[in-house]
Amino acid sequence: MENNQTEISQLGEFGLIDRLTKEFPLRNPETKKGVGDDAAVLSFGDNDVLVTTDLLLEGIHFDLRYVPLKHLGYKAAIVNFSDIYAMNGTPKQITVSLGVSSRFTVEHLDELYSGIRLACDLYGVDLVGGDTSASVTGLVISITCLGTASPEEVVGRDGAKPTDIICVSGDLGAAFMGLQLLERENRVGAGQKDFQPDFSGKEYILERQLKPEARRDIVEELRNTGIKPTAMMDVSDGLSSELLHICHKSGTGCRVYEDKIPIDYQTALMAEEFNMNLVTAAMNGGEDYELLFTVPITDHEKVEKLKGVRMIGYITKPELGCALVTRDGAEMQIKAQGWNAFTDKD
Amino acid sequence: MENNQTEISQLGEFGLIDRLTKEFPLRNPETKKGVGDDAAVLSFGDNDVLVTTDLLLEGIHFDLRYVPLKHLGYKAAIVNFSDIYAMNGTPKQITVSLGVSSRFTVEHLDELYSGIRLACDLYGVDLVGGDTSASVTGLVISITCLGTASPEEVVGRDGAKPTDIICVSGDLGAAFMGLQLLERENRVGAGQKDFQPDFSGKEYILERQLKPEARRDIVEELRNTGIKPTAMMDVSDGLSSELLHICHKSGTGCRVYEDKIPIDYQTALMAEEFNMNLVTAAMNGGEDYELLFTVPITDHEKVEKLKGVRMIGYITKPELGCALVTRDGAEMQIKAQGWNAFTDKD
Repeated sequence: MENNQTEISQLGEFGLIDRLTKEFPLRNPETKKGVGDDAAVLSFGDNDVLVTTDLLLEGIHFDLRYVPLKHLGYKAAIVNFSDIYAMNGTPKQITVSLGVSSRFTVEHLDELYSGIRLACDLYGVDLVGGDTSASVTGLVISITCLGTASPEEVVGRDGAKPTDIICVSGDLGAAFMGLQLLERENRVGAGQKDFQPDFSGKEYILERQLKPEARRDIVEELRNTGIKPTAMMDVSDGLSSELLHICHKSGTGCRVYEDKIPIDYQTALMAEEFNMNLVTAAMNGGEDYELLFTVPITDHEKVEKLKGVRMIGYITKPELGCALVTRDGAEMQIKAQGWNAFTDKD
Repeated sequence: MENNQTEISQLGEFGLIDRLTKEFPLRNPETKKGVGDDAAVLSFGDNDVLVTTDLLLEGIHFDLRYVPLKHLGYKAAIVNFSDIYAMNGTPKQITVSLGVSSRFTVEHLDELYSGIRLACDLYGVDLVGGDTSASVTGLVISITCLGTASPEEVVGRDGAKPTDIICVSGDLGAAFMGLQLLERENRVGAGQKDFQPDFSGKEYILERQLKPEARRDIVEELRNTGIKPTAMMDVSDGLSSELLHICHKSGTGCRVYEDKIPIDYQTALMAEEFNMNLVTAAMNGGEDYELLFTVPITDHEKVEKLKGVRMIGYITKPELGCALVTRDGAEMQIKAQGWNAFTDKD
């Protein structure tokens, strides 16, 4: 490292984004919200337009030794749709840019696009553009997704209030355990020609890793039940990281109960097999693409009736900090240990 | 190559895009135009929203041995703005995603972003989002740009009619000759510690390569003069390639006159020094980011008064094909020899 140079890992992903983007003013009246949420919020007419983008790099975000290209395409689209739903919007269009090295054939890209197409079909999204180029090294996928929401509907990360109930959809930690399983079987089978990985009874965690879904159903259920969350985001980096984002942006603290965190049976079994701490996996695993949201305490009864939504804690005043309340009643400070592509420690 | 597999170079960039995107239906009423122009056209209210995206990969699109990071950031933003102007729109927002390998420091990214910020300042564009990640190899930059235009204003590639006049702004071939110069000086200076490249008298072609501008001024001039082009695009891959795009999309042919093609004096000198065919460089060099557009013949007098715009030919019926009329009156068929990242032949 040269003199006076700062390694990126010293700042981390979020610190870096803050530093790089802080000196960009927003000057167009069409721009309502810029960097700092699941999606930007733009206004071009009666509806707001939501914009989100994701960059996926081979060797960092995916490993083609155990991720089929069709699944990769599907997931690459889904993670963007998820960001739009996390703003309480509806995804409408995507652009897909690819960098492709010479080891890929047209048929490989057909596979990748068949996954993207399946996701677009299921979620009603149009492919409207992109850019395709050679790459010196691996596969690069950059997807931008646009969505719509009425201005009253849009939910950011910054509206949580003390006493609000914290809710999460589905269950957590399964995608992370699925990844551990895939990596183990890949290591075990390396170099063995007819190796058959043992995936029986582990289909759920594999599907959570390889073929996640965006929770359109939850967004629709909330709308139908007349619940508008005060804050919402999707769980991509891990529950801990996302809770800290909401509390930081909303200027609050939180208490989350260990015994309320939804965990599937297969996730628990797999954590035991790997001798891993189950709650750590659920709190920090990431890639769940579940919705984390807060609602006013007056919506308690409505939320109780929602299918597949669990109340896991509540928002507090900021001075109380963010803590996990363990089964024995102890409070552990929540730290972001989510996936950070700039450090090797995770 | 495995059996029944097709190399990407067999299809080329445009063939590949056609194949991958042809089975995606457009189903949302908000989507007016998808893949196949400088930008997609979406409708969310009174104004149309234009969306374009570009992926830049180190070792393919840029070489950091002779491209300063600030210039790279500036150019990466400008090429996207240029696509929006080429639709007769106004760029409003960008998202910037980065993949960064460990040899880059925070200060390097500050440099890159200072170029992006300068471009945003000069063109009045807001940075609204992005994604930042580690990369196993070089630098990856993916930018998506949104712009607006009233629905009556939007100009695609598909509206050219026989007898329309073909116009181009500025001059062509300079960015290409600038690249040749940079590459030569880089080769000559390789390994020499105190090597000073000789750039005197060549500032213009260097600036055209390293710090291109988007032709907002031309779009404004057209608007002020009451000219609405029948077709328009920006010259990124080279005049030949872009002429073929317009004629293909419009279902026409064209005649372009060799002696009308605008070429700067420095470009001509440099081509002579390199013993290169000047017209080939101007027709196929690319990265000019000038505007190529067609206007009805009735606008002849108005176009004559435009500053920095040259009439270079006219649109014909499709059966006449696309040809360059040389100085001696011969017709040479125009072939796309623009930059193609999937082949090594260029």
